[in-house]
Formats: sequence, structure tokens, C-alpha cells
Amino acid sequence: MPKQEKSKLRVIPLGGLNEIGKNLTVLEYANDILIVDCGLGFPDEDMPGIDLVIPDISYLEANREKIRGIVLTHGHEDHIGAIPYILRQINPPIYGTRLTLGIIQNKLSEHVLPFTPSLNQVNAGETIRLGSFAVEFIHVNHSIADACCLSITTPVGIVVHSGDFKLDVTPIDGDMMNITRLGEIGRKGVLLLMCESTNAERPGHTPSEKKVGKSLETIFSANTDKRIVIATFSSNVHRVQQIINVSANHGRKVAITGRSMLNIIGAAVELGYMSVPEGVLIDINEIKRFKPEQLTLITTGSQGEPMSALYRMAFSDHSQVTLGQQDLVVLSSSAIPGNEKLVGRIINELTKNGVSVLHDAVVEVHVSGHACQEELKLLQALLKPKYFMPIHGEYRHLAANRELALDMGMDARNIFISEIGKVLELDRRSAKFTGTVPAGKILVDGYGVGDVGNIVLRDRRHLSQDGLIVVVASLDTEARLLLSGPDIVSRGFVYVRESEELMDEVRQIAAAAIEKALAHRGKVDRIELKNCVKDDISKFLYTKTKRKPMVLPVIMNL
Amino acid sequence: MPKQEKSKLRVIPLGGLNEIGKNLTVLEYANDILIVDCGLGFPDEDMPGIDLVIPDISYLEANREKIRGIVLTHGHEDHIGAIPYILRQINPPIYGTRLTLGIIQNKLSEHVLPFTPSLNQVNAGETIRLGSFAVEFIHVNHSIADACCLSITTPVGIVVHSGDFKLDVTPIDGDMMNITRLGEIGRKGVLLLMCESTNAERPGHTPSEKKVGKSLETIFSANTDKRIVIATFSSNVHRVQQIINVSANHGRKVAITGRSMLNIIGAAVELGYMSVPEGVLIDINEIKRFKPEQLTLITTGSQGEPMSALYRMAFSDHSQVTLGQQDLVVLSSSAIPGNEKLVGRIINELTKNGVSVLHDAVVEVHVSGHACQEELKLLQALLKPKYFMPIHGEYRHLAANRELALDMGMDARNIFISEIGKVLELDRRSAKFTGTVPAGKILVDGYGVGDVGNIVLRDRRHLSQDGLIVVVASLDTEARLLLSGPDIVSRGFVYVRESEELMDEVRQIAAAAIEKALAHRGKVDRIELKNCVKDDISKFLYTKTKRKPMVLPVIMNL
Repeated sequence: MPKQEKSKLRVIPLGGLNEIGKNLTVLEYANDILIVDCGLGFPDEDMPGIDLVIPDISYLEANREKIRGIVLTHGHEDHIGAIPYILRQINPPIYGTRLTLGIIQNKLSEHVLPFTPSLNQVNAGETIRLGSFAVEFIHVNHSIADACCLSITTPVGIVVHSGDFKLDVTPIDGDMMNITRLGEIGRKGVLLLMCESTNAERPGHTPSEKKVGKSLETIFSANTDKRIVIATFSSNVHRVQQIINVSANHGRKVAITGRSMLNIIGAAVELGYMSVPEGVLIDINEIKRFKPEQLTLITTGSQGEPMSALYRMAFSDHSQVTLGQQDLVVLSSSAIPGNEKLVGRIINELTKNGVSVLHDAVVEVHVSGHACQEELKLLQALLKPKYFMPIHGEYRHLAANRELALDMGMDARNIFISEIGKVLELDRRSAKFTGTVPAGKILVDGYGVGDVGNIVLRDRRHLSQDGLIVVVASLDTEARLLLSGPDIVSRGFVYVRESEELMDEVRQIAAAAIEKALAHRGKVDRIELKNCVKDDISKFLYTKTKRKPMVLPVIMNL
Repeated sequence: MPKQEKSKLRVIPLGGLNEIGKNLTVLEYANDILIVDCGLGFPDEDMPGIDLVIPDISYLEANREKIRGIVLTHGHEDHIGAIPYILRQINPPIYGTRLTLGIIQNKLSEHVLPFTPSLNQVNAGETIRLGSFAVEFIHVNHSIADACCLSITTPVGIVVHSGDFKLDVTPIDGDMMNITRLGEIGRKGVLLLMCESTNAERPGHTPSEKKVGKSLETIFSANTDKRIVIATFSSNVHRVQQIINVSANHGRKVAITGRSMLNIIGAAVELGYMSVPEGVLIDINEIKRFKPEQLTLITTGSQGEPMSALYRMAFSDHSQVTLGQQDLVVLSSSAIPGNEKLVGRIINELTKNGVSVLHDAVVEVHVSGHACQEELKLLQALLKPKYFMPIHGEYRHLAANRELALDMGMDARNIFISEIGKVLELDRRSAKFTGTVPAGKILVDGYGVGDVGNIVLRDRRHLSQDGLIVVVASLDTEARLLLSGPDIVSRGFVYVRESEELMDEVRQIAAAAIEKALAHRGKVDRIELKNCVKDDISKFLYTKTKRKPMVLPVIMNL
């Protein structure tokens, strides 16, 4: 294949670098494009009103005929969540493990799509061929079942994409990350390792999921007189399995609350990822038939989400469950950065109602799903890649992962910290950055995808800080007459009833600005008039209140 | 004193319970009121545009003739920050230690006040008499120098207010918390202990400030080739002293940047709380005369504050300092809950620029200033109070402090978790909650104090989520004619240039609603007309976009 050998492999992250989530990596060779993962991100605090963030895929739209497929490492939102949105633009076949596809199917049922997506199941250990790529799915441990890393054989060499992983030598399903296979691939020779960086700043090893089971056992033994309510991530199938097992051992019935928890447990049981002993699961409506100490409730809301089941229980707004002194709430999770205050609010409210609360700062009721430094180094040691690209993380995490590669003896010139849209070109002997393609954040707000951009966000932030003043006047610009107004309407600025004097002054300043413009010779320029009104009012209000509300003059010409 | 013996002591927290900061406690006996601390709080994320929060002191205003003075435990913002604001309403004499008053003087110079405040210095160990109260200032350790707890002798017994404290057996200034004196007071018999709860969830002891010095020594020894930039809280005089000492030992010059850092170090040196070896401090403008490895910079910005010196350095916006590969930045602090993302942003930017970064998750470069569980129990053991009230903290912290008192063997009926405005009445033999006084949060926004309330905040939040649509029309209601408009102006909703069609539809809906109202029999009701326009547009937009912008109809009648 002389033509192929002349081509280079292009590795283009479209998300997941210098950010958390929104993971999407493009591998391109000649006429073939392979997409690895297709995740969403959550909005920053400077994106008010935004529901979620997806990758800009204009590069993929422009090259749609090259796309051979999307391969998915696992079923977390930050790896699959953008699929319903990108399926409106492109419709490549999708490949993933059974649980991953089950979760996607569930998601897709809530969206109306122009295409019927092609979902194709791959089991760990299998290899699929997509254009010039052969993709082998390799089992890893993670905080969701059925997670894989990918060994992608390309015409220029093997690229390993770690997905999200940890090494759990005592996993709940008995299935350890397949490091043997990874060692075999390392022996063959790996051109490029793209490795996740989430915990690259953390020394040591991530504890086994089993550790949580032991903590739960201790907690259940010590609280035989209480109803136990456990909040965790709905997708953590093994965590939920452990909670069910401990409950069954202690003769408790288990009820589930929270929509996503019901959905995922339903799918996991159906697909065989979870086994529930006969008669243990009961409907949340049946809990009245049992004494509190005979019950375990599993709920969503471990991040303090304001509409979640746990939040509603804490704030006495849940139709089936009221929490009180007979309850112990266990937060089997850790707060994602930015959610600390929301979680704190729930803990305060629960404590106020006499509920006992345990969380990961007090007992080991949560372990991470991501590899710490020793596991990250182990992966490097097994694969011995020629080139290394840290992925999945903010810059600090990518940089920490690079440090690990340097510690492993890798040449600094062979380590590439990339960014979204940046193209790394590789052949068998070399790798270098060669350019960029369009990349960025597309904001989703309600049904709108991409219709909110920087200007709209800037206005929202401005409005949120000091509110707004609307100035309305009707003019006859021909006759140079102020026919009506100016009327002043304000929102989010001051409590108007107590600031009538201030509002009167604003009205007078607006009137003066208008009269001045009308008195001026020449044609009345409405844009200039608006600017005058705006500037005069803004200056006045800043001097008077040290605030800068948005001033919106609306001048009607009759 | 038969009259006095009949009276009861009223203890009324006006801030600092179920919240962090804004500490203010009122002690009232017959015709005397004593105020302990007068702090500010910082706004929550649901208070956009708010600069700071102060306590509602209407109860004090209504009883101004009773107020004998304000006693201050130490000079942190959450204990003194509301003074410039409350001095506009009431003007009692203020009592505090030298450094505390120095910091207040500095603050007051930025405010125009109707009164000349009376500031009165008290040294630890001294007792002042204020009406029926005798207040003894007792030295404690904390993350600011010159901090005290207060032993307040009242006609019904002794009340101890802990202020903020920790026990440091190896403090930087050599002056350990005076637990001997506290033990003596305990021997006399304490009626009520009001004890801070900040770290009541944390087991063990808070490490000594000296520990940070040891870490700094290690860091300086390992980085003799780098300029070292250390960010910390400006008020942590002992921390700054240690940084200066280590720098001097390593032959480095020290330059200070950041307004509050310069202010506080200036005051601390002047008042003798800090000693700087001759020739070590240099002006930030002189740093070019030295090699990077001969320099230490001390800076503000350890919380990631966007206008701080460290932020400006990180984002290449500082006039004297550009950071790069020759720099090591040490964050000698921990992120206050809610600031994690801001701090993370700085770490990412620094790392991107090749700067090495050390923070408290990696090395012990920060210790808390607050007592952990063993210290809190020690205070209880020394004082053996009859009644106990946890203060300073969210509910979870207060509840954890109550648990400690229960562990110490205290009767649950003698422990009072209070809330702001709640009145605890005590005599020598009893204590009970008897009622409430007005209390709450007064919001400061620019020059405005209290002119932003719940309605304004609700509007700001609404505007920030989905923006707004202004609909303007001029009518002749007599002639039932639409003279001009409706004009549609939107901000923060969609990018208008790409949504012309949508805006057109909004205009048509507004026009239809107006025409319908004009066509209707009877008088044209403008309020009803506005509501129709608003409802029709809101419904349309929600169906179309799943968003709920604020709709503001302005109807002018000519």
C-alpha cells in the first residue's frame, strides 16, 4: 500500500483538554476518520442559564464522508452525552459495549432525531475494523461497568486511548483491568499513548471499590436502629450492587428513588450487570409497610442537585419520603469541584432535621474511578509508548501526567500537551504539531444548540450583576417633539418603591438628554440620541450608586 | 442590687449562626447592651452583584441608648468588617487590641462617616467595665495576631465568648493561648460558653503555625535556583513573618505586592507585630536589580480573586512581574468553599506558563487558624460551663460542636443551638429560649446598603438565566389605535442577528395581543393588556425554545 504509507496519522482532540468533560478525539488517516467518545461538559459559573456544553464538530461536518464510526470507551455523560446532539448533524455508526449502548438507547428515546442511529455492540476483547483502523476493546476498571480502553491499530502504528480507568485488583464483578493484554500490546510496540489525567496530581493508588463495601458493612452494623438512605452516582452500577448486597445481608428491603437511578438500575438489571436477590427490591410506594430499620433507600442527589430526590427529601418536598431522627443519610460520593456549596446546603438541612449524615470526609464511603499516579505509571510501563499525549483534564492535570512520563524516563520531546483543535501528525518515526482545525464549546440552552454565544452570555452576566434600566420615549423627530415619556422601567437594580427619588432623577436626566438632542440643529440621529441617554444615565447612576446597570433606551418615532 | 437580680441576661446572636461570617452577638442585661464583634459576610452564589453582607441591626437601632460598647475579639473581616456600615446608624465606643484597632483605622479611612468613632485600646489580660458587664480580654492563638477570647462577668454569672481560636503550643510570637487564665475562670464557675464551631467536624488538633515554617524551609532549600512567589492571606501576620524569616535566612530580598498586603504589613510593622531584618524588604519596583533566585515575592490572591496581584501576574497583567519557568508559586492557604474553581483557574494558567506551583494538597504550606475537636473539648474541659452555645458556623458545624459537648458529658438540655435573632434568657439557675428580635442579612451593593432585597435578587437571577425581551408600543387608547410598534428589544436571550425569524414571530404575537385588546369592548386596561402581551410571548417562547426570558412590556399612551 504505497499510497497509505505516504500518509500521516492526524490526532485531533475536539474536547477534553484544558477542560473537564466534553471528551472527543478524532483520528484521521487519509480518507478515514475515527471518532473516540462524544461527551458533554457542564457549564462554568460564567455561563448563566446554559444547560450543557458540547464540542464544536464543524470539522467533522466538513469531513462527514470520511467518518467510519464513533467508538465509545464507556457510558458516562462526559463520554457519550453529546451523541443526541451530534446525531442531528452527522450519522456515523456507533460502537460500544452493551451497557454503554443501553444507556445511549435510554437517552436517545428522549430526543427526536433526523436519523435512526446505528448502534453496534462490541464486547471487551473484540476487534472491529473501521476503514484503515482496527480497534480492539480492552476491559478496564472504572466507576461504571463495561468500560474499555482502546488499542487502535493504524497504518503508522498502534495508538492506545486509555478512556477513563483505574486498576482494581478486587473489582466487584471479579473482572480486573486486562493488563495482560495491554502488556502484550506493549510488547508489539505502541506509537502513541493518549492517557487520561484526572488524578495525575494524586500520589499512590486509587483504592478498590471493595473498600466502600467494607465501610458500608461497618455502617450498617452500627446503625441497625435506623433507616439508611444512600446517595450515589446512578451510573455506578457496582456501588449500587454493593449497597443492595449489604442491605440484603442485613435483612433490609431496598427502594430506589430518583429518575436517573431508576433508569440506570433498570437497564443494568435487564442487561445482567446487576443481580438483585429475590424479594429485596421494593417500590418506593411500599416503604410504609416496613419499619424504618428494615429499609435502605438508594437515591440520586449526591452532588446536591436542587431537583434531585435527596434534595427534595432534605427539604421536605418528596412525596414518599420524609427524613428525620430515625434516618441516616450516607453520601457515597465526593463533591465535584463547584458543587461543594450545594452539597453543604443539603448536609446542613438534613442535620437541622435531626438526620445523621455520613460523607467521604468522615468515612471512606467513596473511592475514585480514576487512576492515581502509580496506576498511570503502570500503564506507561506496560505500553512503553514512543509518544505520549496526556488527555482528559485541565492544564494542571495534563502537566502532572507529563511529569509522570518524564519520571518514567521519556524524552520531553516525545511528550505532547495538546489542546482542542490542535493537530498532531504522526508517522512511524516522527510526531509533530502541524496546525489547527475549528474547535470550541457549543452551548445548549433549552432547545437551542449554539444560539447562545459570548455576546448573549456577556449580557446575562451584566444583567445579573446590576440589573437593568429601560428608558422609553416617543418622539416626533420631524416636529422635534417629545410626545410621550420618557418612562423608566427597572428590574434587578433597586427596590423601586423605596427609590422613587432616584428613579425621578433618572427620568429627568433622560428627558434632558432627549430635549437637548431635539434642540440641536440638523437631523435627529436616533442612534446618537440613544447613546446620549445611555451615557448620561450610566454616569449619573455610577456616581450615585457605584453600580452599572444595563441601560436600554428605546426611542419610538411616530 | 435587688433590681438587677430580678433581671435576666439575654443572649442574642445577630449573625454567625447558620452562616459563615457576619459574626455579631448581643448581650443584654436590664438597661445595658454589649455587642461582641461586628463582622461582614460574603455573598452566596444566589446573590449576584452583591459586594458584601452585613447583619440587620434594627434591634440595636431601636435600643441605641442601652448600648455600652462594641468589644472585638480580633481583626478579621468577619468580625470587624461591618463596623464602617453600622457606624452610620449607631456610634458606641469600640474596644479591641492594638492590631485590631490598627486594621479598623485603616478601613475607616476609606469611609465617610457621620460620627467620629471612639476607638479604645485594650491589651490581653485587661478588664474593662461596660455598664453591668466586666469584659476580660484573654489571649488566644489564631491566624491573625492579637486575637482574644472574652470572659464577660454579668450580674447572673460569667459568659465566655471564644472568638476564633486555636491552641498553638509553639506560636510564632512565643505567646501561647492563655489556658491558665481560662482554667482559673473555669474554677470560678462559668454560666455560658459560646464557642466557635468552624472546625468542629475535624478530629484531632490543628497543627502549629511553625509547621508551615518547616515546609517553607524545605521548599526554599530545594528551590535555590528559582524566584519564589508566595500568596497568602494578608492578615496572617505570623505567616508573613515566617516567609520573611526564611527568605532572610536564604539571603533573599522580599518584595510585597497587592494593596491589602502592603496595608496590613505596613500596619503590623509600625505597631510592632512584625520584625523585618534590616535591608530585606525592597520595593516591588526594585526587583529588576536582583537575580530571580535572590528574590521572594509576597502577594495577595491566594483565593484566586480576579483583581488580585497573583491573578494579574498569572494572566500577564501585572506591571512589575511576569511569571515564567524561573518561578515557583506557593499558595500558602486553602481555598475557602466556593473559591475552588477560581484557585484552580490560576493554577492552570501558571502551569501553562511553565511556572511550578505548590499548594496545600501537595505540601503542608497552610494550617488552619481554628480549633479542631480536641482543642474544642479542651476549652470545654477548662471552663466546665453550665450552659453551652455553639456559634460561628453553618448548622452542620454547630451540630458537630454540640456532639462534642455531649461527649464531654454535658446534659443535652443545657446545650442551645440558637439562630440569629433568637433570644436565650439566662439567670443563675436556668436558661431558655424566650422569643426573637429582628435579624437578617443586609446586602451591600456599591454605595447601596439594604436597597437590594429579595425581589431585586430574584429579578437578577431570572435575567441571568434567560435574559429579557422588551416589548414597546405606543397606543392611542381613546381612538383604540396602535400608533407605533410593537418594537422588540432583547438582551441575553439569543444572538438576535441569527434569530430574526424568531424575533419577527414575537413581534407578531405582541401585535396580535394588542390588536385583540384594542378590538375588545369597554375601556382598554393597560395592566391587563401588558399581562396578555407578556403571557402570550412567554408561552410562545417556552414552547419554541424551552426558555423563560423575562418579558417586559412597556405600553405608552399618547
